[in-house]
Amino acid sequence: MNTFGRSFRCTTFGESHGPALGVVIDGCPPGLPLSEDDIQPALDRRRPGRDPLTSPRPEPDRVEILSGVFEGRTTGTPVAMIIWNREARASDYDELREIFRPGHADFTYQMKYGIRDHRGGGRSSGRETAARVAAGAVAARILAEAGITISGTIEEIHGVSDPTGREDEIKNAIAEGDSVGGIIRVTARGCPPGLGDPVFGKLDALIAGALMSIGGVKGVEIGDGFAAARKKGSEHNDEMDRTGFLSNHAGGILGGISTGADIVARVGVKPTPSIRKPQKTLTTGGEETVVRIQGRHDPCIVPRVLPVAEAMLCLVLADALIEQQKCRVFQE
Amino acid sequence: MNTFGRSFRCTTFGESHGPALGVVIDGCPPGLPLSEDDIQPALDRRRPGRDPLTSPRPEPDRVEILSGVFEGRTTGTPVAMIIWNREARASDYDELREIFRPGHADFTYQMKYGIRDHRGGGRSSGRETAARVAAGAVAARILAEAGITISGTIEEIHGVSDPTGREDEIKNAIAEGDSVGGIIRVTARGCPPGLGDPVFGKLDALIAGALMSIGGVKGVEIGDGFAAARKKGSEHNDEMDRTGFLSNHAGGILGGISTGADIVARVGVKPTPSIRKPQKTLTTGGEETVVRIQGRHDPCIVPRVLPVAEAMLCLVLADALIEQQKCRVFQE
Amino acid sequence: MNTFGRSFRCTTFGESHGPALGVVIDGCPPGLPLSEDDIQPALDRRRPGRDPLTSPRPEPDRVEILSGVFEGRTTGTPVAMIIWNREARASDYDELREIFRPGHADFTYQMKYGIRDHRGGGRSSGRETAARVAAGAVAARILAEAGITISGTIEEIHGVSDPTGREDEIKNAIAEGDSVGGIIRVTARGCPPGLGDPVFGKLDALIAGALMSIGGVKGVEIGDGFAAARKKGSEHNDEMDRTGFLSNHAGGILGGISTGADIVARVGVKPTPSIRKPQKTLTTGGEETVVRIQGRHDPCIVPRVLPVAEAMLCLVLADALIEQQKCRVFQE
Amino acid sequence: MNTFGRSFRCTTFGESHGPALGVVIDGCPPGLPLSEDDIQPALDRRRPGRDPLTSPRPEPDRVEILSGVFEGRTTGTPVAMIIWNREARASDYDELREIFRPGHADFTYQMKYGIRDHRGGGRSSGRETAARVAAGAVAARILAEAGITISGTIEEIHGVSDPTGREDEIKNAIAEGDSVGGIIRVTARGCPPGLGDPVFGKLDALIAGALMSIGGVKGVEIGDGFAAARKKGSEHNDEMDRTGFLSNHAGGILGGISTGADIVARVGVKPTPSIRKPQKTLTTGGEETVVRIQGRHDPCIVPRVLPVAEAMLCLVLADALIEQQKCRVFQE
Repeated sequence: MNTFGRSFRCTTFGESHGPALGVVIDGCPPGLPLSEDDIQPALDRRRPGRDPLTSPRPEPDRVEILSGVFEGRTTGTPVAMIIWNREARASDYDELREIFRPGHADFTYQMKYGIRDHRGGGRSSGRETAARVAAGAVAARILAEAGITISGTIEEIHGVSDPTGREDEIKNAIAEGDSVGGIIRVTARGCPPGLGDPVFGKLDALIAGALMSIGGVKGVEIGDGFAAARKKGSEHNDEMDRTGFLSNHAGGILGGISTGADIVARVGVKPTPSIRKPQKTLTTGGEETVVRIQGRHDPCIVPRVLPVAEAMLCLVLADALIEQQKCRVFQE
Repeated sequence: MNTFGRSFRCTTFGESHGPALGVVIDGCPPGLPLSEDDIQPALDRRRPGRDPLTSPRPEPDRVEILSGVFEGRTTGTPVAMIIWNREARASDYDELREIFRPGHADFTYQMKYGIRDHRGGGRSSGRETAARVAAGAVAARILAEAGITISGTIEEIHGVSDPTGREDEIKNAIAEGDSVGGIIRVTARGCPPGLGDPVFGKLDALIAGALMSIGGVKGVEIGDGFAAARKKGSEHNDEMDRTGFLSNHAGGILGGISTGADIVARVGVKPTPSIRKPQKTLTTGGEETVVRIQGRHDPCIVPRVLPVAEAMLCLVLADALIEQQKCRVFQE
Repeated sequence: MNTFGRSFRCTTFGESHGPALGVVIDGCPPGLPLSEDDIQPALDRRRPGRDPLTSPRPEPDRVEILSGVFEGRTTGTPVAMIIWNREARASDYDELREIFRPGHADFTYQMKYGIRDHRGGGRSSGRETAARVAAGAVAARILAEAGITISGTIEEIHGVSDPTGREDEIKNAIAEGDSVGGIIRVTARGCPPGLGDPVFGKLDALIAGALMSIGGVKGVEIGDGFAAARKKGSEHNDEMDRTGFLSNHAGGILGGISTGADIVARVGVKPTPSIRKPQKTLTTGGEETVVRIQGRHDPCIVPRVLPVAEAMLCLVLADALIEQQKCRVFQE
Repeated sequence: MNTFGRSFRCTTFGESHGPALGVVIDGCPPGLPLSEDDIQPALDRRRPGRDPLTSPRPEPDRVEILSGVFEGRTTGTPVAMIIWNREARASDYDELREIFRPGHADFTYQMKYGIRDHRGGGRSSGRETAARVAAGAVAARILAEAGITISGTIEEIHGVSDPTGREDEIKNAIAEGDSVGGIIRVTARGCPPGLGDPVFGKLDALIAGALMSIGGVKGVEIGDGFAAARKKGSEHNDEMDRTGFLSNHAGGILGGISTGADIVARVGVKPTPSIRKPQKTLTTGGEETVVRIQGRHDPCIVPRVLPVAEAMLCLVLADALIEQQKCRVFQE
């Protein structure tokens, strides 16, 4: 289950402190203009160490295309991309080798696999999302050809929506040795009606699964989201006239299929689990202990989740766009 | 995309006003005791026409097992189940044949497929969920053998949590020719640690996708959900001691893998789109019109979504339980 | 693994002596004219009891469409079809309940599942192929719209190619209480170039897997087949000029992708394992015994495999045809 | 469709003359001892330039593990492996840029994708199989833990089975500027009964598809293969007594499920399509021309297909072994 998508299928690999991260995209349509220059900017947005409020691990995150592109265009064969880990300092994690960090996947990986790469969280590290962002950039390239654009914005940090106030929240968290969460909104504009499938392959179901698969995400809403649960039908339904829909409470999806209106999703991100404050936990041997997480960590991962959330929306929509081709066998 | 699951794979079929609904489960482990008596009670809970506040279409919803069971036990071959439609009155829908009902999938199905079974919403009808509930009952049977129990509860109707008040909200909606939504919580107890997969197959991602695939669901939360976005790390992290986790803000999942604590999810359900109040819309020919939906409809689908949400959680967990067998090749 | 195909996905169910057999097709393109009349003739060809040389179980094999068709056209939602078992006489098999029949799947099912529906072979019965033939008829309908026709022929029975001689071979086998095998050739005409995928999804690989999945098939060849292993490159390569390929040693597939020439495959079918001659075997309890199979059996299954082989080729090609739509995103 | 397998899923990438080839294995069970030393010997067997009778392109084919292994054991996360192309001399192929080589995938790739990497066959090159062999070596490591060993042998070259005569056939082909094919047998010993699935996932169907997916393979047989079509049931059925099966005409598989006897498959390999003899063909512009293929080519690919055929059998069986875990939910 390191593969995402049905027709545009991305398989990612790599650990935080292994030699490299990467992704293989199977099903990228042939004839798409593509080079590293289409992908690097998205990685640069996600990259750590960009400003004083994020993790200081200075990874260059240079992407290299290994296959599937010939003379500047995709050929229809798998597009493999690799990002080398340059600044992995595994020894930083020696003291965490035998401790289950609260809020992290340490305990659950051990329970699942009976073995665990403890260095920087191994596969469960946020670093894994670099491969998603690279794949998302290819998807965005496809969507751009179809006139679809994806954007995202931070709505709140620790309950504060004002940008200056948000920065204060992060600074306070750093000062306290604590961390904060926040809320992100992602939007797709220009999406044609008809994308998505009924029943289990509903577009909103795929988007919800895609966004919830990002580490730290605890909630997903489409359109009105939970607010719809407190409305009446007459308030929530989107009426239509010849100009189109008169509102967009549905968030661009009805019956799991795109309406043509903007697709709007919101995600709630938990506070970074790595904090300097002391926390009770267990060692891998089952002993009680208290841990204070040191080392390089973001006090708030929301800004770094933002490009990942956009990437996941790109992956879902590029896949749905290609899938929709199948419905056209007898429609043309 | 009418198939759900990886190892316990359910493929559903059927329209609201066709001859029958059904499901084929491929990957049900052999040796499970199973009969119609294990499934019928779940269907009875979802069934329409049970009380004056729900839709009066009086479907008996009797399930029949067609394959995969021999002398009271599953054989490992596909378990097919069928539910005949008895009370389909297609003529009720004649006047809606050329109208896109607001809040429904009428417009989007037409855009996607270029053809549409308008009778009762066709495949997009809530009636499709009968097949999910039947499959979910088989999944629940598997989970029961593993000591896992699923339960669900209504938290709110139209923002009101008090049971009497909730009923009033529904009655008022009926009187107004309107409808209301609500919030449901589902819980899995007894789930062992280690279920779920990293990255795209995270257990919370699968649950979010599963719940969002139910018609009318607009939001999903795991554990603290959106509230986590307003907490600090020290408030949200679940500390551990020898007795286990000291809290369950995570909702039983860390890094996409079950912790052993209760798995807790919440879903926000929109108000029923079918309302008697007049609404602006378009005809299939593109003409503006005003529609007042008549016929048999629930003023609030939340009570009927409840067993479906439980069923979907059962499907995700039974699948994850079987998938986890694969990790044990070299662990025993 | 009771599902076949990627875009045109058929999930079959049912046992020889259960209530019914059936298939759910997910991914049938919308807008295809379809009724039971398109499917029944194919089932009639496969049906048992048609002539004195085949099994006398007189099943009517009437197919019923349960979903996915509205007013004579497919809607894009799952097409479910059911065939009821009418003439199941389970008691015929009582004496085989505790015996592993040589050449049958009795022993292997028991080893795999630890439980086994012994009645007529249960799921391993050739009766399962009725569902494949029904699905294949829908696929053939799609192919017909694209100008592709599938045909099949018996090349040999027990090494004899002359039709009269073949019939003698079968009669002799009956007289001896024995059985015979044979060879079938299936051909697809009118297939456009470009179908199939490189590497693991090669069209010939899919065809080989599809044909080998039919009970009793022990060998598959494409084009020259094993004879190619005894040729030189200059003898096997198909040269081209403006009129197209000058020969078709490749059997219509190069690099796993259709060339536009006829697709030609051959299958070798083993003799029916059920014979009246005495055979050494074991009981389910591990005791040695000798079995003489009585009851209703074909002395030669080749004539009944023929429509199944055609159906499987239809399924592969319809799936490939729909899949190929995905390559056209940027080609139009 | 560059992914193979259900539970042990291998996704390969890379072109003959791109920067690298590679494979990502998703679903490798945790806890398996693994290093490059387990994989390199298999690659060395497949490597070009090893003796005067094979292609002189001197690729070192060094494999590097990029992820999924920690302190000498697999962790359950994706195992990515990369093999750099060192000796790619793309300019060798300049003159073939606009010519469809007979017997190659040049024409069909162009028809499918509308674009083609002509350098050395691009993705359709036999070089792609290096990634399969690397993945197969990991699979073999899993099988070894379960006591299963895979071996393969060349049965014939150009119809000759005597080893000295076979070499003469290849030398003659070189002298003539021609090429020859041959037949390979692969065997799995120690396979437990119960592997494989009924219907479409039959073990023989998966093996047939796997072997036919190797470039140049035109026929596949299991056990008696086509010879079974000329036998009687009493000759082909494998009787049993307490010591087990008394013969193995079935090739170790009944009803698609392993019997516990040796699994035996044969593949027919066509002669290398690249020959120096003149052949009629078309240019990409549709003009008639005559081509004589120069450059580095094997006169007979059979010796190099051998380790690939073994690798594919390993992949099928490792996958089936892991899949079979699922049947054990209620069997222990």
